[in-house]
Amino acid sequence: MARPARFITFEGIDGSGKSTQARRLADSLRRAGHDVVLTREPGGSPGAEDIRRLVLEGDPDRWSAETELLLFTAARRDHLEKTIQPALAADKIVICDRFADSTRVYQGITRGRLRAKVDQLHSLMIGCEPDLTVILDMDPAIGLARAKGRGGTEERFEDFGEDMQVRMRAGFLALVDEFPQRCRVVDAMRPPDTIAADIAALIEGC
Amino acid sequence: MARPARFITFEGIDGSGKSTQARRLADSLRRAGHDVVLTREPGGSPGAEDIRRLVLEGDPDRWSAETELLLFTAARRDHLEKTIQPALAADKIVICDRFADSTRVYQGITRGRLRAKVDQLHSLMIGCEPDLTVILDMDPAIGLARAKGRGGTEERFEDFGEDMQVRMRAGFLALVDEFPQRCRVVDAMRPPDTIAADIAALIEGC
Repeated sequence: MARPARFITFEGIDGSGKSTQARRLADSLRRAGHDVVLTREPGGSPGAEDIRRLVLEGDPDRWSAETELLLFTAARRDHLEKTIQPALAADKIVICDRFADSTRVYQGITRGRLRAKVDQLHSLMIGCEPDLTVILDMDPAIGLARAKGRGGTEERFEDFGEDMQVRMRAGFLALVDEFPQRCRVVDAMRPPDTIAADIAALIEGC
Repeated sequence: MARPARFITFEGIDGSGKSTQARRLADSLRRAGHDVVLTREPGGSPGAEDIRRLVLEGDPDRWSAETELLLFTAARRDHLEKTIQPALAADKIVICDRFADSTRVYQGITRGRLRAKVDQLHSLMIGCEPDLTVILDMDPAIGLARAKGRGGTEERFEDFGEDMQVRMRAGFLALVDEFPQRCRVVDAMRPPDTIAADIAALIEGC
């Protein structure tokens, strides 16, 4: 059995199918005999889930972009210490629905153009990157319609509308130029089985 | 009427009388016709008070030193944006019971020796210092006894005991060498009226 990447993240705009494909990959790796931890951000540990609620519930203008960035970084640090690092140390595969790239795109590009601060804060307090990042690429109008159809109370970022989704898609695609070694774009407009097969092939190629 | 320092902080070990003297100074400046905002950290704005509860309630080992530092910095950023900066912009005097120096001493010296990270984070996300910092100096054993006598559910740091109070006192005193322009030590073992008179003289000298 070939050894796949150990820390795998899924990124992409709302409605691009990240949660679905992350779950499918976890199922498939488990069937192949791997021990898999499937997690998500913001959240993924009890403390980080509490911070998630503090950030995402209530008035969307409650926090400035800078305070929100600090809260997301606190949640990521807790998630890393309590969930991700112990799983990797126990030789498990970690699949995470969103990670630092979402912060780079959302906070860095769309929420106050804080990218330099995002990078400095990441380097100072997080300092780790996934082995493989799957970027699910999707037409922003379709992604937005899907995300809205799904409902849910915490999906604040959807409220920014289609123009923002277009800018976020461009931000996710730009990550490939910045992190070419770990980022792979997968066309998420195709049937879920086809997407899942492409992702499985990526994992085996790592 | 001479113009006093505009952003004044009180620092010192638990039980050294910070809250009492901060309140006395606020009352005295108000009597002299100044518009004063009396605030505290962690907390001091609705969002920062929510973060304070998240940090200080529950299991003391719930957060690592690094996550706690990020949460305190998020609270400070919110407090700065929502309370301190608007008050200073409206030409008010801000008196704050604890500020960044408490983080420098507590997190930097006693909670994981994170001083370098504390400084980088402060420079990146806060980037402002008080005009005057009053360091109330107190025998650690007496301070601890006073703080314990006062009760309260959130005073987690007292639980570290007298040895920690001794190290924290040294940490607060060391701030004077680091920030000689704004830090002044006041002997807090004397009667409250004498201490208050000393502090009033410091303010007038600014």
